[in-house]
Amino acid sequence: MSADSTSTTIWDPSLAEACRALAAQLRVDSIRVTSRAGSGHATSSLSAADLMAVLLVNHFRYDWQRPKLAANDHLVFSKGHASPLLYAIFRAAGVVDEAELLDTYRQFGGRLQGHPTPALPWVDVATGSLGQGLPDAVGIALAGKFLDRLPYQAWVLCGDSELAEGSMWEALDKAAYYRLGNLTAIVDVNRLGQNGPTELGWNLDQYAERVRAFGAQPLPIDGHDLDAINNALATARATRDQPSVILARTIKGKGVPEVEDKNGWHGKALPDDIAEPAIKALGGPTQIRVTTHAPASGAPAITPNPSAAVKLPSYTVGDAVATRTAFGEAVSALAARPEVVMLDGEVGNSTKAGEFSKAAPDRFFEMFISEQQMVAAAAGLSVRGYVAFAASFAAFLVSRGYDFIRMAGVSEVSIRLVGTHAGVEIGQDGPSQMALEDLAAMRAIHTSTVLYPADAPSTARLIQTMADTPGICYLRATRGDYPVLYEAGEEFPLGGSKVHGATGDDAVTLIGAGVTVHECLASAAQLAGEGIAARVIDLYSIKPIDQDTLLAACRATGGRIITVEDHYPEGGLGSAVADALTQAQVPELKLVRLAVRGLPTSGAPEELLDAAGISARHISEAARSLVRG
Amino acid sequence: MSADSTSTTIWDPSLAEACRALAAQLRVDSIRVTSRAGSGHATSSLSAADLMAVLLVNHFRYDWQRPKLAANDHLVFSKGHASPLLYAIFRAAGVVDEAELLDTYRQFGGRLQGHPTPALPWVDVATGSLGQGLPDAVGIALAGKFLDRLPYQAWVLCGDSELAEGSMWEALDKAAYYRLGNLTAIVDVNRLGQNGPTELGWNLDQYAERVRAFGAQPLPIDGHDLDAINNALATARATRDQPSVILARTIKGKGVPEVEDKNGWHGKALPDDIAEPAIKALGGPTQIRVTTHAPASGAPAITPNPSAAVKLPSYTVGDAVATRTAFGEAVSALAARPEVVMLDGEVGNSTKAGEFSKAAPDRFFEMFISEQQMVAAAAGLSVRGYVAFAASFAAFLVSRGYDFIRMAGVSEVSIRLVGTHAGVEIGQDGPSQMALEDLAAMRAIHTSTVLYPADAPSTARLIQTMADTPGICYLRATRGDYPVLYEAGEEFPLGGSKVHGATGDDAVTLIGAGVTVHECLASAAQLAGEGIAARVIDLYSIKPIDQDTLLAACRATGGRIITVEDHYPEGGLGSAVADALTQAQVPELKLVRLAVRGLPTSGAPEELLDAAGISARHISEAARSLVRG
Repeated sequence: MSADSTSTTIWDPSLAEACRALAAQLRVDSIRVTSRAGSGHATSSLSAADLMAVLLVNHFRYDWQRPKLAANDHLVFSKGHASPLLYAIFRAAGVVDEAELLDTYRQFGGRLQGHPTPALPWVDVATGSLGQGLPDAVGIALAGKFLDRLPYQAWVLCGDSELAEGSMWEALDKAAYYRLGNLTAIVDVNRLGQNGPTELGWNLDQYAERVRAFGAQPLPIDGHDLDAINNALATARATRDQPSVILARTIKGKGVPEVEDKNGWHGKALPDDIAEPAIKALGGPTQIRVTTHAPASGAPAITPNPSAAVKLPSYTVGDAVATRTAFGEAVSALAARPEVVMLDGEVGNSTKAGEFSKAAPDRFFEMFISEQQMVAAAAGLSVRGYVAFAASFAAFLVSRGYDFIRMAGVSEVSIRLVGTHAGVEIGQDGPSQMALEDLAAMRAIHTSTVLYPADAPSTARLIQTMADTPGICYLRATRGDYPVLYEAGEEFPLGGSKVHGATGDDAVTLIGAGVTVHECLASAAQLAGEGIAARVIDLYSIKPIDQDTLLAACRATGGRIITVEDHYPEGGLGSAVADALTQAQVPELKLVRLAVRGLPTSGAPEELLDAAGISARHISEAARSLVRG
Repeated sequence: MSADSTSTTIWDPSLAEACRALAAQLRVDSIRVTSRAGSGHATSSLSAADLMAVLLVNHFRYDWQRPKLAANDHLVFSKGHASPLLYAIFRAAGVVDEAELLDTYRQFGGRLQGHPTPALPWVDVATGSLGQGLPDAVGIALAGKFLDRLPYQAWVLCGDSELAEGSMWEALDKAAYYRLGNLTAIVDVNRLGQNGPTELGWNLDQYAERVRAFGAQPLPIDGHDLDAINNALATARATRDQPSVILARTIKGKGVPEVEDKNGWHGKALPDDIAEPAIKALGGPTQIRVTTHAPASGAPAITPNPSAAVKLPSYTVGDAVATRTAFGEAVSALAARPEVVMLDGEVGNSTKAGEFSKAAPDRFFEMFISEQQMVAAAAGLSVRGYVAFAASFAAFLVSRGYDFIRMAGVSEVSIRLVGTHAGVEIGQDGPSQMALEDLAAMRAIHTSTVLYPADAPSTARLIQTMADTPGICYLRATRGDYPVLYEAGEEFPLGGSKVHGATGDDAVTLIGAGVTVHECLASAAQLAGEGIAARVIDLYSIKPIDQDTLLAACRATGGRIITVEDHYPEGGLGSAVADALTQAQVPELKLVRLAVRGLPTSGAPEELLDAAGISARHISEAARSLVRG
């Protein structure tokens, strides 16, 4: 325990009594709401009721009428299945009334869903996929300490089962690295998972050893001892240079003797013959209205300025520039906006995200090789209104971070992801480093935008656009240097595309994105020499997609379309085009899809593009066959 | 250090000299191979050369001519970028010759790729996505200890940077839980990552504290002290009840003074003016051929019996049975085959994977809530020839495990994944629990098979088929109970489908899978009452897909096709159908795709299916509009 960690809270018998009464109400409501709904996690709520009652009465600083207030504390239920307890808290705070609580929980049309989502204004992030709330809160705490510079605390109620998720340790590691004293994990160690006992049971010593080893302050307590809870919460708040983890030994189902510490009651509503006497024994329904402490006064140290002048880098047509370089330069230019933040997965020299650290070192966060935590931190920063970019190799960012990206979608936060080194084009490093499924994965994410520009100016402009685009924005960048195609000042709207070389009598349309645009252009030049007119579409915006241009091209070229992608055939660019074209009736559609099939190997990029059948040579062959065959 | 952990190895001066000489050769080769290729990770190989030399000379038990020998030790390069060192080992072992080493590394057409893959017979799993080799090796060690019951050791060379990945801690946690003394992580703590210093640098104490807290035995050493390395390796092998983690303080670039412990040399070949004198100073190229110890004798305790009689569960048409229930019953029936293993993500009571634990408790492994480790363990078990199934909720299994699934594809191992509780059909638990992108994600995986059966018999039969299907097999199962559609004995080949109610004059084809098959059938019944003949296709095999049947139906029903899926519209069933149909010319295609759009909420399954526009009512509306409009 560090020197500054003495409790500073006032704790007298009346306060203890208030906590006791509130805990009883939270328990009664947790039982009532689940029994009424016929489903939900009653016992997982009961174990944490004392923890939350003391937090609410004596430590949580929050203006319930102004949930977006910058100085508010944050409360994240990483164990999202304890939603009955969270909603009971909302009733106690006076923001959800009894009718809503009892009549709408888990019901269609209601906002009190099975697991919390930001459909409720007091919920920052959706939880329910375990191991994510704490990593999300790391992002909130980073914002609080380094950007807002406000004394709010991020309190995170965690389950003990979810400590088996590696992401929880990524979170503690990063929280300790950044000395996030404003982050407190409250672990409800009720020793029972969904299916049976947890790995460590009530072995608080071993949990404490792990927590300490990861650089956080462990605070083991009896999670039903109000005094101990109060001291631990006070100590956690008072410790400013280190995150704290309250390890609360609790009893699952606490307050209902029939189910206390019994396996087999996870995720179940209590039947009436247990629920009714339990509610009675707990004192019956009450109408306690808790008044939480007011948040500290103060405004964030950073005021967003979306209209700050941003001078994008400029490029000369024909120069060879990697799109990852353009990303690095563009995001550095965006650093002129004080709300823009960059997160790096310890590959900033490759992705070029590292450039940002020169432009705005105070808003550059090294997350080391923990893509899950990196994505979660971006989500947490979004909660506080920051425009967070996160970058790594596309394969690792999207696939390692996928559940966190999915949940960021469910949270409807706004994050900007840049995946570099995608596809076989990366060359010698081989298939483990080649994202070949990222476009498919990202297209299927709720609120996603998927971009894959072919040159530096389009990349720079799209990076700027991403800063102002809500939802999950993903841009795929290429490793190698390719010619600049577009003049400065060209616009690249979302859902747009660029048509190259269209004439009135084109015989075929070649559609690429990123590196394959250059292959398509080379093929079109070859074909022109053979008397075959081909137009090329640079489909830089894969989602949303430019359906009108695709349909027009399809009709103009007799339905002859060739898609070319450095990606597996399922769900990527070719699928996006097929999806768009089959939404209209295109009687004459003759679609040929060139994509990577099978497992690539190492090699030079041009060898691999050719071996995958997506080089200019293959495009031309396919075009000849379509046109002449 | 536990009591049984005394070194038992013989170590005399000649052995030390052999190690020194081999280490020099490994260094020279690591430099030569990268300098010749012009890329690759020289300095990351140099730091670990002493560790590997001592392992090879005195501890590794392996028959290089019989890499599939059951009793062989295993060597996994979790830091796959140290491939130059690995390939130098292969040369020292006499299985790769100098010409191949020098001429083919990272070259197109060669098998010595930038990061190792099982294209080389001595490589178990592809690595290069950090944080995966150790989790994979947990699977190998589980096989060794509990299934094969052979004394082989799994040695894993890890980087220090990758200890920032939560998956590494999932791996240690599970290794300790299962007391995998046959697993040794050798961490090359060279303190420099790709971009700069690691989080913990050379703080071996803090690493040791973490390792100990996670239940493993830390063995901190100087990674260039041959004697210390030898003792640590001997201690690790002698410790049978606990995994060991050798924490080797090393110098990145060791042996080349110009780059030793210097930032900026990660992933770079040394230029000739550094490489040539360094090679000379190290003694120049040598032709040392190392003879490793022979593996222990003995055969695995389990002999696979793929033709063992398996009595699948039987069901009565019309009975309501959840497909997850059929999965649990079928996989339990498969337990009759001694090579079948079940991994559970602590939700076995929900997924019904828990049923297997009754049929074959010795082959049921509880992985708790660590989906990444669970998928990796399946891959490791596959290395040892076991038929491993892993199950969790679809949302968590696929999205949390996605990078591990991707890499299992690159490894070309065979794993069987079952994701239950998919889509809005799960109902009250809300969107965090609803897989709505899993089909898209899984279709894009190399070697994947994607199945989504609608009833119990088809599920049971497909689970059986999965056991004998190579690659990454994924089956999506449904939470709720739905009527049995098929008679016992019906076959469900991969790439097949089932057509319901086809007549000569069908006006429209309705295509569903899983829960939406039932909605399609209900709609067809409604439509029949209105005089609209509709055929229904149960597209239980989404990849591979039954293109012939789809095309035939399309032509038979005037191109009028409606796809219905409990999934987002991108990359799922509708995309798979569009992909298949647009590969042929179907001039009259009129495709309507019903899918989940936007963010679902909680509610009753039938409410949510309807709200998403994928219920029978919506299908009928779409069909009427297609047929009459």
